[in-house]
Amino acid sequence: MTKSLRLGIAGLGTVGVGVIKIVQQNVALLSSRANTSVKVTAVCAQSRTKSRSVDISDYAWEDDPVKLAKRDDVDVYIELMGGEDDPAKASVEAAIAAGKHVVTANKALLAHHGHALACAAEDSGVSLRFEAAVAGGIPIIKALAEGLAGNKIQRIMGVMNGTCNYILTRMEHSGLTYSEIFEEANQLGFLEADPNLDVGGVDAAHKLVLLSAIAYGTQVNFDAAQLQGIGAISTDDITAAKDMGYRIKLLGLSQMTDQGLEQTMQPCLVPYHSPLGQLEGGTNMVVVEGDNAGQIVLCGAGAGEGPTASAVMSDVMDIARNISIPTFGIPAAQLTRAPAAQSTTPSAYYIRTSLRDAPGVLANTARALGDAGVSIDRLRQQNHEGDSAPLLIVTHPTKPSHIDRALSSIAATGETTNDPIALRIVEV
Amino acid sequence: MTKSLRLGIAGLGTVGVGVIKIVQQNVALLSSRANTSVKVTAVCAQSRTKSRSVDISDYAWEDDPVKLAKRDDVDVYIELMGGEDDPAKASVEAAIAAGKHVVTANKALLAHHGHALACAAEDSGVSLRFEAAVAGGIPIIKALAEGLAGNKIQRIMGVMNGTCNYILTRMEHSGLTYSEIFEEANQLGFLEADPNLDVGGVDAAHKLVLLSAIAYGTQVNFDAAQLQGIGAISTDDITAAKDMGYRIKLLGLSQMTDQGLEQTMQPCLVPYHSPLGQLEGGTNMVVVEGDNAGQIVLCGAGAGEGPTASAVMSDVMDIARNISIPTFGIPAAQLTRAPAAQSTTPSAYYIRTSLRDAPGVLANTARALGDAGVSIDRLRQQNHEGDSAPLLIVTHPTKPSHIDRALSSIAATGETTNDPIALRIVEV
Repeated sequence: MTKSLRLGIAGLGTVGVGVIKIVQQNVALLSSRANTSVKVTAVCAQSRTKSRSVDISDYAWEDDPVKLAKRDDVDVYIELMGGEDDPAKASVEAAIAAGKHVVTANKALLAHHGHALACAAEDSGVSLRFEAAVAGGIPIIKALAEGLAGNKIQRIMGVMNGTCNYILTRMEHSGLTYSEIFEEANQLGFLEADPNLDVGGVDAAHKLVLLSAIAYGTQVNFDAAQLQGIGAISTDDITAAKDMGYRIKLLGLSQMTDQGLEQTMQPCLVPYHSPLGQLEGGTNMVVVEGDNAGQIVLCGAGAGEGPTASAVMSDVMDIARNISIPTFGIPAAQLTRAPAAQSTTPSAYYIRTSLRDAPGVLANTARALGDAGVSIDRLRQQNHEGDSAPLLIVTHPTKPSHIDRALSSIAATGETTNDPIALRIVEV
Repeated sequence: MTKSLRLGIAGLGTVGVGVIKIVQQNVALLSSRANTSVKVTAVCAQSRTKSRSVDISDYAWEDDPVKLAKRDDVDVYIELMGGEDDPAKASVEAAIAAGKHVVTANKALLAHHGHALACAAEDSGVSLRFEAAVAGGIPIIKALAEGLAGNKIQRIMGVMNGTCNYILTRMEHSGLTYSEIFEEANQLGFLEADPNLDVGGVDAAHKLVLLSAIAYGTQVNFDAAQLQGIGAISTDDITAAKDMGYRIKLLGLSQMTDQGLEQTMQPCLVPYHSPLGQLEGGTNMVVVEGDNAGQIVLCGAGAGEGPTASAVMSDVMDIARNISIPTFGIPAAQLTRAPAAQSTTPSAYYIRTSLRDAPGVLANTARALGDAGVSIDRLRQQNHEGDSAPLLIVTHPTKPSHIDRALSSIAATGETTNDPIALRIVEV
């Protein structure tokens, strides 16, 4: 055993405390596996005096994460504050400039500034790692960047936001509305300060674009992702999906096509009894399809103290073991700028709308669909609700552009009583 | 990009051909990810002239794998011949002695000689890696040894023999007997030359003991594993399990207890709609439980050209990227010799026997169970078959030793018409 690896941790919320617990409790195990001792030397958080479930009195304290990142007694700077801008960004830049390795759980930071930071880390000869940024305790970054390194990756799918999955499964089990369960999740502290990060699909899309960069060797490009949140999902949708053998999940999908990189994060119908369909609550699942490995599925807790801290420690242990590969798997200078592609893959779609209860209205809607090139597989008119009649349609496989056209045409009939929604049906 | 990494491949069956295809087809991708070129320089197999789906004419040929392993133009020796003894063993030893890195898919070799080979590799300063030896294309070795390196591993469970899973699921779907499906699997070429390696649970246990060594930092100890094959499973068992909401799987289970290391590979009942229960055909699944990550599930193809070659290439790419950790995660000298422990964990059990159709016989069986300390949860006497009556019992949670005693006592009544069997019920 040579020298020790010294950690400086910025951010002592759930994950930071979890990392300290692992370092304190599994000290012998970590030393044996790393062949060096791993210890925390300095920390930084918003409050020094806040009551915490770990003893931090042995660690040096900094008020400023940038100062922590540059300390002489820190080899690895662990950024657990979150947020795409400063102080997280400034502190990571400072650590890299000072020749420190960086481990972060910050998906927003990397989704927006990942390419620049990866370039900086390589120039500085340090590691920048982010296992904890995607899918909590699931070692998906390692599986993708190293375990499947012999594969041309063909597609990635994933349910990677536990809060959305909690809301959707709770709506199903309780029969309560989106608004009611949203409020419940908020009371339970499941939602981010800006709830749109969760229910708008932003957080999950941050994760997806990081996986895309590794999978296809491309520069992280969050702006190219197409997002649709879960706010428009009704209990009727959930019930109708279930009746047809499906379940609604906020599903991320990324693939490289001849047109460019497709990255979508949107509520989709997946088969009820498929692995993705069976996911409950905060569990995450990522499906990776490689040209040789075929379909590999990884599943586990997507958040929480232990799982996320486990992922942080996986990166720390790699650094302790001198395992070093470029941040996104290949040298940053070789990452390509793939154009963003609209999805053109035909899928069946679930469409819900609600029509004025009047003669000829259904015919007009059916014509709008036909004119848009959308062919109907199944159609169901529900019990009338006052003057309107909910209408559920499952289409034959259709290009997304045709579905968009169809939705506009239906709305343009002036005979709908709400905005029609369309959800992709993904058979996995 | 510096020099190239030169591979010597011994064994050109399915997996060897798969590895060559990856190296030939994904050449640019591999170079970019490894930051060095990866190429095959020499090969060895039983027949030089056999028709193969890849062109090997550019590679040097050796008749003797030991000679291949020592060639000057080979940096990594890839052993894909299989078999726990020579020539596989001799060739791996020769490669290590000659300072070559070794990648192998040979679970039998490592289950029997893994500790000695790991010691030799460390003394020689080379890597000995075996991602392809366990669960095909699933990157389980990497996930366990690196991705979960911050965790004390608490338990591992897995379905890791595709042939057994094929037989059991085919029996369920077809209603045909074990013997009939065994014959079908044999015709399809699914069985090893010695079928007991598959249906006796040996192959799956080889894999389990390798995972145990990494998980608990112990010397590989195959002799300490308790094995029970699937040969005694009847269609009645499969039907009865399904009626009760279960499915029968050849399930590996390993955990470290105060008594020592428990490693069992045996047919078990798992909940029908659980991820393990839903496995079909050749798909493998491994469940790892860590003190921090919680339960992580990995799933994918457990065999076949592409998946197994993908795993081999994962090891090759690690070597190309200078990623090097000890074979079993910690230095071989630190691996402990854990005593083998009999399982003492209480479980519910499914018991099937068949009784002579005579007065008082059921009472005697029930008494035998009670005397052994086994309490009955559910009991069902099936339709009589001639002079005997099949009896199915589900027990309350019971120690394995009590079940063993109960089976002996039931047999000792002299009133059974076949050997009673007991299968553990695992709620996962």
